[in-house]
Amino acid sequence: MQLTADGKLKHFLTTEGIPPLLLEEILDRAEQFVSLPGKAQVKAPLLRGKTVMNLFFENSTRTRTTFELAAKRLSADLVNLDIRNSATSKGESLLDTIRNIEAMGCDMFVVRHSSSSAAHFIAKYCAPHISVINAGDGRHAHPTQAMLDMLTIRQHKPDFTPLKIAIVGDIKHSRVARSEIHALNTLCAGEIRVIAPITLMPNGIEDMGVKVYTNMEEGLKDLDVVIMLRLQHERMNTAQLPSVREYYARYGLTEERLKLAKPDAIVMHPGPVNRGVEIDSRVADGSQSVILQQVTNGVAVRMAVMSMAIASQASLAKEKGAS
Amino acid sequence: MQLTADGKLKHFLTTEGIPPLLLEEILDRAEQFVSLPGKAQVKAPLLRGKTVMNLFFENSTRTRTTFELAAKRLSADLVNLDIRNSATSKGESLLDTIRNIEAMGCDMFVVRHSSSSAAHFIAKYCAPHISVINAGDGRHAHPTQAMLDMLTIRQHKPDFTPLKIAIVGDIKHSRVARSEIHALNTLCAGEIRVIAPITLMPNGIEDMGVKVYTNMEEGLKDLDVVIMLRLQHERMNTAQLPSVREYYARYGLTEERLKLAKPDAIVMHPGPVNRGVEIDSRVADGSQSVILQQVTNGVAVRMAVMSMAIASQASLAKEKGAS
Amino acid sequence: MQLTADGKLKHFLTTEGIPPLLLEEILDRAEQFVSLPGKAQVKAPLLRGKTVMNLFFENSTRTRTTFELAAKRLSADLVNLDIRNSATSKGESLLDTIRNIEAMGCDMFVVRHSSSSAAHFIAKYCAPHISVINAGDGRHAHPTQAMLDMLTIRQHKPDFTPLKIAIVGDIKHSRVARSEIHALNTLCAGEIRVIAPITLMPNGIEDMGVKVYTNMEEGLKDLDVVIMLRLQHERMNTAQLPSVREYYARYGLTEERLKLAKPDAIVMHPGPVNRGVEIDSRVADGSQSVILQQVTNGVAVRMAVMSMAIASQASLAKEKGAS
Repeated sequence: MQLTADGKLKHFLTTEGIPPLLLEEILDRAEQFVSLPGKAQVKAPLLRGKTVMNLFFENSTRTRTTFELAAKRLSADLVNLDIRNSATSKGESLLDTIRNIEAMGCDMFVVRHSSSSAAHFIAKYCAPHISVINAGDGRHAHPTQAMLDMLTIRQHKPDFTPLKIAIVGDIKHSRVARSEIHALNTLCAGEIRVIAPITLMPNGIEDMGVKVYTNMEEGLKDLDVVIMLRLQHERMNTAQLPSVREYYARYGLTEERLKLAKPDAIVMHPGPVNRGVEIDSRVADGSQSVILQQVTNGVAVRMAVMSMAIASQASLAKEKGAS
Repeated sequence: MQLTADGKLKHFLTTEGIPPLLLEEILDRAEQFVSLPGKAQVKAPLLRGKTVMNLFFENSTRTRTTFELAAKRLSADLVNLDIRNSATSKGESLLDTIRNIEAMGCDMFVVRHSSSSAAHFIAKYCAPHISVINAGDGRHAHPTQAMLDMLTIRQHKPDFTPLKIAIVGDIKHSRVARSEIHALNTLCAGEIRVIAPITLMPNGIEDMGVKVYTNMEEGLKDLDVVIMLRLQHERMNTAQLPSVREYYARYGLTEERLKLAKPDAIVMHPGPVNRGVEIDSRVADGSQSVILQQVTNGVAVRMAVMSMAIASQASLAKEKGAS
Repeated sequence: MQLTADGKLKHFLTTEGIPPLLLEEILDRAEQFVSLPGKAQVKAPLLRGKTVMNLFFENSTRTRTTFELAAKRLSADLVNLDIRNSATSKGESLLDTIRNIEAMGCDMFVVRHSSSSAAHFIAKYCAPHISVINAGDGRHAHPTQAMLDMLTIRQHKPDFTPLKIAIVGDIKHSRVARSEIHALNTLCAGEIRVIAPITLMPNGIEDMGVKVYTNMEEGLKDLDVVIMLRLQHERMNTAQLPSVREYYARYGLTEERLKLAKPDAIVMHPGPVNRGVEIDSRVADGSQSVILQQVTNGVAVRMAVMSMAIASQASLAKEKGAS
């Protein structure tokens, strides 16, 4: 469903099932869009005359802003729909909202939604000339986050095959973890681990091809890459998580613990960081942290995905015109 | 007041009193701006270097977005004023707000306001080089909505003179109905009907040149065009409207009832649709519905009106320079 | 800290300590950016490819809009960060927010904050290639407001040295007054007065080189320029201010009182005006008022400051490249 008949990227809903060559194409393209801090931003006219609609049913200033910057640097017309004040709040159905927005003339939806099936639903029912980019849907997927993480890893460790990589934290509720595991599997990462307390570990996660650790120290051993997840405030002090203090004591990434990984291991985090909850400030700001590089890569990956999706539309339209 | 001395469009406040040739010019121009779904958007540099201010004192994400898209496709600088958080909420008068915004340098106000006289008031008192486009004021007028409806009708039935057209619903509180009736009269529509329960029918509406029906079945007979209005939630379950169920039973547009109109009648609705309240889903999504075409035409009509108003400013400035 | 090693404007945090030639350069440049009402806006490509982030931690629609217009007229990519809904509200520190936004790639922060040290803090800790423009921080400074006032004064009275200028109102809590006093001192204004009730007069204000008046009539005598301040609603009816009625009786600028100043004195106000609280409507709208000219100058001054700061970055980058 995400790909055109000839295997190009039409939508980007999930990293699951995307062929390895296409994931690599995203990374290669993104690499060209990376602007070094303090250098002139890379600008490109690839989306000139195209209209991108930011549909954020769930609030996320940071992710919305990176998509806005990506769209503007590609010269698109970008509209942020104030969706919480819109007709959907007047009882209009999601489908009616989509039909109406597409009738205004647009080429791409960037969708953030609290429901795990929203992006697929919209991609299934929207007009055929529109591309849908999933900017996070429920517990399901956050594919651009996963790809910016892949890009960051590749910049430090170009060959995925020997790498030992762990994802640490609330695996159970994390769309980021799911999307990363799919991408890492496709890119043939050597070993993928998940580290979490048993209450935050989803049942059957082993079936995704990962090794399960409930002990942080064991899980960190010999790692090349440590991917920390953000602990959501709503999980704290619940049956799933007795106390922040205890969580940090057992799973917080401290300088001490980080020494269990390889000396050149990199530390990642999707942000915003809860200092002293899932990670020690000295680690977050330390020499092994690549957290801010992830943010920079986020704009580049979004530019890559948006330009590839629009390019596949153009080639579709050309075929249609030729036939 | 809406026209320049030589009869060009300076403001667009109401369809009332606009000469037929000017209404037709709006429609002709808009036709050139219509982008077919999936085709490249029509872009034009007609407002390059111009600043358009969206002044939405009343919230309407959908209408605001179509004006924003229209302005961007005409290459204007568009600023959405967050008017609910602005100085007016600090007790500043409307006139002070207007004076201040125009002092920032701008060429056009797009105004939405809950008061019926707001757009005229602003047009009367704003600086002479500024055009005001009414995006809906109280119960008074919504002229761009009326014109997008006229465009949609003309695309299906090019000659207005033989047409039988009905507007159905809360006529009493509808600025859309008022603006449509004025436009249809000017364009010499054959017969204009209004259909509503007596409690939602304004006194003396006959004076506007319409036929009044309180019986839906009678009103629908032999129609070429059925224009449904949105039933506002605040009217429901009041003295004016005993219950939604009863309203739908008597005035809901069902497939059964639509058969009373001509077989090629078109069904229109300004959106967002209340399915099962004023219209059956099967009709809203059916082959006679042109509701989404209305949305597409909405962007084109707004582009037409904005570019005509800016062009009349330019010719005014030239005259002034020459004299 | 605001200046580069060779004395160019890098940040604009406060008017304090900026050399006179640099203040005059701001005024000269701004003069070139002033668009006359009804004339085409001055547009310039000086910030093309640059990203400006509006970081308004404190709400101010008016100031935010003038910065947005200034950035757009300089061809920048401008992003309004919805900072109240952003990660800072999820407990992220200001520094983490800044680090993250700069990692997205940006060249300038426009900062409004309720804390008096926010702009300096951000300028101190942000990446070296980023310029910070203070759009008002706590009670500390509002330098672009001060400079638009200087520009307005200079347009009417080109030589500052003989001028008698008074600032009237809540001096104690006013960042505008502070920034104006610094700028007027640097520009060698002849005499600077502050007029306020004793409860709204800061201790030791004389040390800033101003004459203190608690009697309005005495303070107004022989003035060339009267700068009224806005009385904040939160001050009214407190221990600091017994009643609005009494304040107006003693400190309101009436036509009668204005006669005490020179006949060609100009009246200024940063807006929004509280009519009948600090100023009579007839004065605010009268022939001596230049309040709306201040607004027009506001966009021009912001364009000047933004373009100077970006230019100093470019020359820094060149040097760095050459060395």
